[in-house]
Amino acid sequence: MAATIQDVIMLFGDSTTQGGWEPGLDGFATRLSHVYARKLDILNRGLSGYNTDWAKPVFERCLAAKRDQLNAPKIRILTIWFGANDACIKPSPQHVPLDRFVTNLKEFIDMVQDEASPYYSPATRIVLISPPPVNTHQRLADLQSRDPPVALDRDFRTTRSYADAVKGVAHAKNVAFVDIWTPLWEGAGMRESDLTKYLNDGLHLNAAGYEVLYEALINVIGERYPEVHFDNLPSTFPPWVDIANLKG
Amino acid sequence: MAATIQDVIMLFGDSTTQGGWEPGLDGFATRLSHVYARKLDILNRGLSGYNTDWAKPVFERCLAAKRDQLNAPKIRILTIWFGANDACIKPSPQHVPLDRFVTNLKEFIDMVQDEASPYYSPATRIVLISPPPVNTHQRLADLQSRDPPVALDRDFRTTRSYADAVKGVAHAKNVAFVDIWTPLWEGAGMRESDLTKYLNDGLHLNAAGYEVLYEALINVIGERYPEVHFDNLPSTFPPWVDIANLKG
Repeated sequence: MAATIQDVIMLFGDSTTQGGWEPGLDGFATRLSHVYARKLDILNRGLSGYNTDWAKPVFERCLAAKRDQLNAPKIRILTIWFGANDACIKPSPQHVPLDRFVTNLKEFIDMVQDEASPYYSPATRIVLISPPPVNTHQRLADLQSRDPPVALDRDFRTTRSYADAVKGVAHAKNVAFVDIWTPLWEGAGMRESDLTKYLNDGLHLNAAGYEVLYEALINVIGERYPEVHFDNLPSTFPPWVDIANLKG
Repeated sequence: MAATIQDVIMLFGDSTTQGGWEPGLDGFATRLSHVYARKLDILNRGLSGYNTDWAKPVFERCLAAKRDQLNAPKIRILTIWFGANDACIKPSPQHVPLDRFVTNLKEFIDMVQDEASPYYSPATRIVLISPPPVNTHQRLADLQSRDPPVALDRDFRTTRSYADAVKGVAHAKNVAFVDIWTPLWEGAGMRESDLTKYLNDGLHLNAAGYEVLYEALINVIGERYPEVHFDNLPSTFPPWVDIANLKG
């Protein structure tokens, strides 16, 4: 059995979170794991294809209720990154209406921040992340290449409205916000077809996209929650040279 | 607080373990984290510069004793990867004599496998990994470039004898063994200076070295402990299409 020797960063989201360690991408999970080694463990709770409706019962199971908190690690940073699937257009079963998406995000935050919640966790710093822009040209080509071909399930403007909504929730709830939508859009010269620069398949980030995300996330942590920036956390267990000097 | 929803793989070792998520390398921690996503969490307990003497008290703290096992995740796979620092030559403070290195490795295994141990964990599958070969040409150049320059602290044949010893311990204790020494040596045409193919600085694996390690490790898991190979473990939480079909 593993003892709890470090607190954790929990990454909660959809496939862009689940894929955060994909080889060749240096994704945000890989980069966070590296800089937080011997400081905080990274728990990836990314759920490919999930929307916020489906993720809600999962989230409850990822959090320790008060009665189970003996030896449970504290979640020092919690990233919540949804919207890419909620923003699917009807008749996609992944579609969640915008107002319910907003309600769900607020519920996730309340589960952690509301003193009356069984999962109340005052030490947890929350970072909301917006969905990236969709490149419907790339996405359509990908869907049409499948057997059988699949109809286009996302729409550029709809995903943009879900990204805007995440920003609104972060503001309303006073939690940190990482806007990945805007820098990718602007970095692509505000041309949807040029989002190939940051997206693999019109939907998922490539290495350049994850680099933008990681830099933005670490900057937000440093500005908003500096006490949990990796530079400000001590290493677990002493550096080897200190041991060598003690024994020397 | 984070609930325990997945068991874990614990990576216990020195800097080659701690650096297993380094960006640009697709290290074994990155690759394991990816293929075991939604199956097992990866806990990196790599300790840069440590030898087995210094790692012993740390290992005790990484394992949950019986009284603390409520809600603690099971360690399903434990990799133990030491020797690169123990094999330092005198007067390096990192040096551990070969016989004590062997004793220490056996103690690590006994802490997990001995029924009388307070950390007894019958579900844990252990994989010992040998240290990689040293390229003393590369290592010396690195040490001489420091300010002030540092004398050569490792020796090709000594590290080889520590690698052989790890194999001997694995055999004696009947646990799985990953030989990283031999494939790197043979892949370099058995020419020490050509180990640049697999090593960054004469000591630490580069991307090609980690690729050999990951493939060897996954093969050993599949052959020796197939029940914990990622292909044979179910995903935590159902696939999204199953939820969509249920609601459809």
